[in-house]
Order: sequence, then structure tokens, then C-alpha cells
Amino acid sequence: MKDTNVISRSVIGRLPRYYRFLGELQQKGISRISSGELAGKMGLTASQIRQDLNCFGGFGQQGYGYNVPALREQLAGILGLDQTYTAVLIGAGNLGRAVAGHMSIDDRGFRLIGIFDVDPLYKGIKIRGLPIQPDSMLPEFCAASAPDMAVLCVPEDAAPAVVEQLIGCGVRNFWNFSHYDIKRDHPEVNVENVHLNDSLMMLSYKIKNRQDDTP
Amino acid sequence: MKDTNVISRSVIGRLPRYYRFLGELQQKGISRISSGELAGKMGLTASQIRQDLNCFGGFGQQGYGYNVPALREQLAGILGLDQTYTAVLIGAGNLGRAVAGHMSIDDRGFRLIGIFDVDPLYKGIKIRGLPIQPDSMLPEFCAASAPDMAVLCVPEDAAPAVVEQLIGCGVRNFWNFSHYDIKRDHPEVNVENVHLNDSLMMLSYKIKNRQDDTP
Repeated sequence: MKDTNVISRSVIGRLPRYYRFLGELQQKGISRISSGELAGKMGLTASQIRQDLNCFGGFGQQGYGYNVPALREQLAGILGLDQTYTAVLIGAGNLGRAVAGHMSIDDRGFRLIGIFDVDPLYKGIKIRGLPIQPDSMLPEFCAASAPDMAVLCVPEDAAPAVVEQLIGCGVRNFWNFSHYDIKRDHPEVNVENVHLNDSLMMLSYKIKNRQDDTP
Repeated sequence: MKDTNVISRSVIGRLPRYYRFLGELQQKGISRISSGELAGKMGLTASQIRQDLNCFGGFGQQGYGYNVPALREQLAGILGLDQTYTAVLIGAGNLGRAVAGHMSIDDRGFRLIGIFDVDPLYKGIKIRGLPIQPDSMLPEFCAASAPDMAVLCVPEDAAPAVVEQLIGCGVRNFWNFSHYDIKRDHPEVNVENVHLNDSLMMLSYKIKNRQDDTP
């Protein structure tokens, strides 16, 4: 297997889609697929699929194709889904609640263990069986439970202080829904950003430029 | 200005971040900035910034730098934020409600005009002043109001039929939070995907590979 550090971001970015798609095949009882069939169903070329998967060791066999469950398990391992990470959610508004509902992948990968919000109105409310706790409880909770990651669903102006506090508590991984640029201030941590506004602007760009194409 | 069709996806993907960042500068009363300063604040190199912005016409002036409000307005135009698009939201669960709260960029760009959900329990509830309507009302609504885009916050298995229906009603632009691969079945429409599970898997990948780096 190639050193995963040198695999391009675009290949890595396609792995979740492969993983999802293989799951769909497995649910349909399909246990074996050629790169050509997989390509057709995913809207890619067979050669792109072979190249992508070869980066991770070339799981296909000439004349046989890919073993769907085996390939999927290998991808799960590469994606780190063979481990379980514990998570705290900071910010229990609509976005936080929606995200909490999307925290598990096949019931593996991530486990939400604590929910925190600065709003005292939320005190006592439970989400997915967990009580919303005040932000002031965060240091104590982290000291006791050492969560692997934090999900940030707070406004941008609240985010820097929360991140500082979480890093002080030993959290090194962030799923960031705020617009705060964590990496700029803390290059040493892992961050995955979900910027809804940026995504909406990309759609706006696509609409505008498609429209500009028309005579 | 170069033909925007040939500008790389990665340059286009950075434009929302420039737009956001220039907005922050403007809020702080900063009206002029050099590419070097902008680079330092954004964690990029000055040459990358110049290259990126040159793709769209080179707005900077030697020895002066960039005029912040003017550059921001030009980016708004490129991103299509100088137009207003009307949108319907399909799926009014937590995710739909959260997304509805993120539909405006500086109060421009997108305007939510209708919310639909298949669940009769939601009937009569209002979100952002709009009543949640049953899915059966969608064709009539689209015929009368001709929304420019749809926001899909429905489960994957419900998505194909909804998309089919919306396309039948003339909708050509989708902000897609379901895992349904719209482009595969309808390559002619504009789609911007937000796949929360994929993003979570990318974080998992980063955690795993960062951990693998440590001895």
C-alpha cells in the first residue's frame, strides 16, 4: 500500500462515496462487482475506480472484480470506521439537534456522549437520551470523559473561546459547523468544516454560470 | 476576464471564503488591504491570492492593494449573489429547520418561499413565518410560484420521487442534503450536495491517519 500521506485529497474525498455505494450494493445482496459495473452505477469511469482503489492496495482481482463486503470493510478501516470515537456536541439549537441525528455511520465511528449549550432555557432537555448541560460543566466533563472530538454548532463569535477551552481540555478533533477558521489559529488540530453558507454560494455560482451559458 | 468555464474548481471553491473574509474586514472598517496582509490573515500565500483573483480579472492595484468593498461586490457578482433566487424547502425536520435558518447570505441570494413535508403532524406549524404544507400541495405551489431552487432535507429513499416531481414542475437547481445522487439520474440540473456522513467520514480519516503518524 502506498503511504496514505501522499494520496491526493481528491481520491480521499471520493472514499466516503465508495463506502456508501458499496453499502447500497450489500443491502441489495450484491457481493461481487466489476470495476466497469461499479463505474456505470457511480457515474465514474472504470479506470478512475481502479486508479482510486489501487492507491490503497488494489483490492480487485482480474476476471473476478471486487468482493463487495471485503472491499467495504477495507474502506471502513482506511476511513477509521473500525474505531469508535467519542464526541461532545457544543450548541443544541436546530443545527446541533439535526447534526446529533447524523452522528452515526452504520452505528459505528462516532458516539455522542455529551451535549452542551450556553442557553439556560435548554437546561434539562434531553436529545437522543442525553441531557443538555450548561457550558460551565464542559471542563469537568472533559476531564472525566476525555472525548475524542467536538462538534461545533455555535455562532462564529462564540467559537474561538469554545475551541480554546476544548483544546485546553485535550480535544484535538473538530467537526466545525461555525464559520470560525480553527486551523488558522490552531494548525495542530484536525478539523473538518461544514460551511453551509459557502455551499449555498457555490450553488448560487452554478446557477448564475449555467444561466450565463444560455443564449 | 477569463472564461469562467475554464477556471478550476479549486479556485471557485475558495471564492466563498474570500467573500466571507472580506465581509469581516468590512465590518471592522478596513477598506483597503494588500495581498500580503490578506494572505497572512487567511493562511494563504500572497501569490496564491493574486493568482486566484486574477482568474476573475485582477482587481488589485500595484502599490495600493485591494479595495475591500469593491472587491467584495465584484465577488458577489461572480457568485451570483447580485440576484435573488426563490427556494422551496422539502423536509421540515430538525435538519430542514436548521437549514432554513441558514438560507440567507447577508439577506441576499436566496429567499425561502415555501416549506413542505409529508408528515401530517407538521400541518399548521410555521417556520420563519411560513406554514409547513403537505407534499401534495407542491405541484400547485410550483405552478403558481415557480421557485428557482429546492432544498432537499428528506431521507434518501424519499428523494428520487421528490426530485422527479420538482423537475417536472420546472425546478432546475437543488441544494441536496439527502444522499441521493441527483446528478447520476439528472445530469442536466445544478446540484450542490451537503453530505454530512461523508464529512464525518473525512474527519474519521483525518483522526486515524494523524494517529497513525504518531509513534
